[in-house]
Amino acid sequence: MITVLRLGHRKDRDKRASMHVALVARALGGKKIIFCGEPDNELLQRVQTVTYKWGGDFQAEFAPSYRTVLKNFKGAKVHLTMYGIPLEKTAKAIRKHENVLVVVGSEKVPPDVYQLCDYNVAVTNQPHSEIAALALFFREVNGPKALQTRFPRGQLRIIPSERGKNVTKYK
Amino acid sequence: MITVLRLGHRKDRDKRASMHVALVARALGGKKIIFCGEPDNELLQRVQTVTYKWGGDFQAEFAPSYRTVLKNFKGAKVHLTMYGIPLEKTAKAIRKHENVLVVVGSEKVPPDVYQLCDYNVAVTNQPHSEIAALALFFREVNGPKALQTRFPRGQLRIIPSERGKNVTKYK
Repeated sequence: MITVLRLGHRKDRDKRASMHVALVARALGGKKIIFCGEPDNELLQRVQTVTYKWGGDFQAEFAPSYRTVLKNFKGAKVHLTMYGIPLEKTAKAIRKHENVLVVVGSEKVPPDVYQLCDYNVAVTNQPHSEIAALALFFREVNGPKALQTRFPRGQLRIIPSERGKNVTKYK
Repeated sequence: MITVLRLGHRKDRDKRASMHVALVARALGGKKIIFCGEPDNELLQRVQTVTYKWGGDFQAEFAPSYRTVLKNFKGAKVHLTMYGIPLEKTAKAIRKHENVLVVVGSEKVPPDVYQLCDYNVAVTNQPHSEIAALALFFREVNGPKALQTRFPRGQLRIIPSERGKNVTKYK
């Protein structure tokens, strides 16, 4: 079970990036996303609307303090950072945990996050995207099945097609 | 060799997302990114600055017409879309090609893109992020080595560490 903690959300600036983080967490089989930073009900609602339309049990919530979330979490706490230990070297140890909290920063990550987490993990040691890093984390930790998550009770389902778009609607 | 074609870049709205797309392409071993849409020299320069600082040969350029790029490309043309055939089913065939052009849309993708490409590929059939989809595409097509790309001639290199940040500077 993987929960995502998104740090330092800024309502205007991170509108799209935080939504991308949430969508990735959901699409790849995450259980829940917790946003810290500026409260943003519109963002929570947009995530919930996706779950309502496309199915599954993914949850989104806001927490006022990342420290409280980190301190209370029972399981492995993993911070994604380009400065950390490569994912290839840490994935095996992380997979052993039943519950994982994966922490995704925005522009500036408070220094205590490095201390409060059990693993600081780099998805490549190059500058790139926290959205991509999160996706690759799910892929490495959950294996290829991350891409085959099932989403029961949705109103919409895509029938894969070679050309064009084919969406089935359920009542 | 994977080249990325980013469609419909909008200078203001896609500033960050297009940069993320470029960073992912570079970090995971892509050769080049071609942007279509609104010309944006600042974006090209930001990508080139990353390559200058962090090494490697990654290129960024602007092209006025995606149709011309698609028509002239020699190799497999792959469009990432949530409506396509799952990546797990197409990766094997795509891997056989020496040169791959992977097409990443923004908000609205012109319908002829579905026709001009050889493969329409879905990275999950769920709504998520083109940035994440691109990262997972590199991971599936290039295998785990996508995460171990080397970047010679950079000025900066990270020494992976369990806590904190360790960056070495080269002249």
